[in-house]
Amino acid sequence: MLPRTSSPAPRKGTVILPPRFSLPVRVYYEDTDAAGVVYYANYLRFLERARTEWLGALGHPLAELEREHGIVFVVRRLAIDYRLPARLADLLDVGVTVESVGRARLAARQDVRRDGTVLVDARVELACLDAVRWKPARIPVPLPSAPAPPTS
Amino acid sequence: MLPRTSSPAPRKGTVILPPRFSLPVRVYYEDTDAAGVVYYANYLRFLERARTEWLGALGHPLAELEREHGIVFVVRRLAIDYRLPARLADLLDVGVTVESVGRARLAARQDVRRDGTVLVDARVELACLDAVRWKPARIPVPLPSAPAPPTS
Amino acid sequence: MLPRTSSPAPRKGTVILPPRFSLPVRVYYEDTDAAGVVYYANYLRFLERARTEWLGALGHPLAELEREHGIVFVVRRLAIDYRLPARLADLLDVGVTVESVGRARLAARQDVRRDGTVLVDARVELACLDAVRWKPARIPVPLPSAPAPPTS
Amino acid sequence: MLPRTSSPAPRKGTVILPPRFSLPVRVYYEDTDAAGVVYYANYLRFLERARTEWLGALGHPLAELEREHGIVFVVRRLAIDYRLPARLADLLDVGVTVESVGRARLAARQDVRRDGTVLVDARVELACLDAVRWKPARIPVPLPSAPAPPTS
Repeated sequence: MLPRTSSPAPRKGTVILPPRFSLPVRVYYEDTDAAGVVYYANYLRFLERARTEWLGALGHPLAELEREHGIVFVVRRLAIDYRLPARLADLLDVGVTVESVGRARLAARQDVRRDGTVLVDARVELACLDAVRWKPARIPVPLPSAPAPPTS
Repeated sequence: MLPRTSSPAPRKGTVILPPRFSLPVRVYYEDTDAAGVVYYANYLRFLERARTEWLGALGHPLAELEREHGIVFVVRRLAIDYRLPARLADLLDVGVTVESVGRARLAARQDVRRDGTVLVDARVELACLDAVRWKPARIPVPLPSAPAPPTS
Repeated sequence: MLPRTSSPAPRKGTVILPPRFSLPVRVYYEDTDAAGVVYYANYLRFLERARTEWLGALGHPLAELEREHGIVFVVRRLAIDYRLPARLADLLDVGVTVESVGRARLAARQDVRRDGTVLVDARVELACLDAVRWKPARIPVPLPSAPAPPTS
Repeated sequence: MLPRTSSPAPRKGTVILPPRFSLPVRVYYEDTDAAGVVYYANYLRFLERARTEWLGALGHPLAELEREHGIVFVVRRLAIDYRLPARLADLLDVGVTVESVGRARLAARQDVRRDGTVLVDARVELACLDAVRWKPARIPVPLPSAPAPPTS
């Protein structure tokens, strides 16, 4: 599902996204389990969809990063709180807020909301790797650093 | 991902959809496997997403059918041809064309296309079941039958 | 889950398997959906696990076929009947019976049973492909052809 | 895959398991992604399989806990480190070590190893919930608390 900001294709380097990028995600049967709720591993699929569309909205589609720059982003560490369950047919809002961008590392806050209520809250650390050697590689494109904290 | 036809919410009984209802689906890492292509079982997830949104576009969301009418649709039989592989980041078009609607049965043609090329082609037979007893139940809402074949 | 026949590693070319090779599979939450049954796409995962272990039991692990021979097996066509649902915690028996082996093609009957009852029944056609060019390739190892039909 | 300790069925209350319960898990195509490694969400499926078989080995199969006691275990919080990737055909060893058992809570260390090397390391907090009201419920069976630390 493409968020509205992804169309038309943004010109690289000119994109300014809101601090929290968000992607709508519908819950289908495939996402649920016999307890009647979204299966806990499947929220990680939602989180990755939002990260992928965030990169695309910045003008850096994953496929291009791998093809042109030979790199992949992999999750190094994840901490996730499951507060409330999502259920079949829910329309969720999955967010990405960049926390920090390093030379070969990226940290982000992510959450999953339904009607404004946070169901799931996560912090994700990603590494940029050379896709062949699977070793750390410099992030090859400019990524927006976290927004400055509000000054009083 | 909501197809354009689903917004605003259609009034029941008044909806006329084109013969082939279609849903755009993006391919993410979660959908692929180590052979570099979409994993064969995951096309069935795409097919079901399209059927779900088709029902929603007709004004009969799945959750409502289960809650108000106590029924579920289950796949009884599936025949699927895998012609060409879909790959990471592809934007696919997943279609539903109703073939026949019976008292408690529904048959549909489905396909997955990329830039107009059919990658996967399927025929699906669904049964309407009582969600508790898991026995055939009458389809509780009017579904459009197949479009009349063109007359010469 | 390794079937008993896979240990110790069989010597190539000397393995004789029963006509129906079978693999036990446990149903976990990950396999089920909110209707309380195994999600229809997930049976395809079970079928592929059984095919993989069948190749391994013949002395041809998938990873070795790809590494040493540069080939992959892909599903070209599948027809599947969903007769009865499997549920959480079920212990299933997933079978593979070779139907025919060609130069670059393989057809098999597969089924999923619980306590001897067939829940799901499928016919699968696979192609052997060059893993790089994604073109038909000769099956590089001897595979047992179908058992001769019983004579009266 | 059933660990060896699960057969024959243990008598309740008499089972003593080693501090680290472990389950062998084979990596199939379904578990991998186009980067050639196990997809990050799928390790959570492996972790849950091990927890499920651990409960079963203690004489408390999930299905029985839900049917007889009306409870489910849900993950409340997870922290996971992805150190090294698992790949197609790997035979993994997935471990569960109980850290603490409360009235309605359970914490465990889990890891995924290959040939003794830790690939993934996690800490999981679970809550025992009433399956209908989805509210905290007392754990209805005795679970072994963590082993005492070695005394010098």
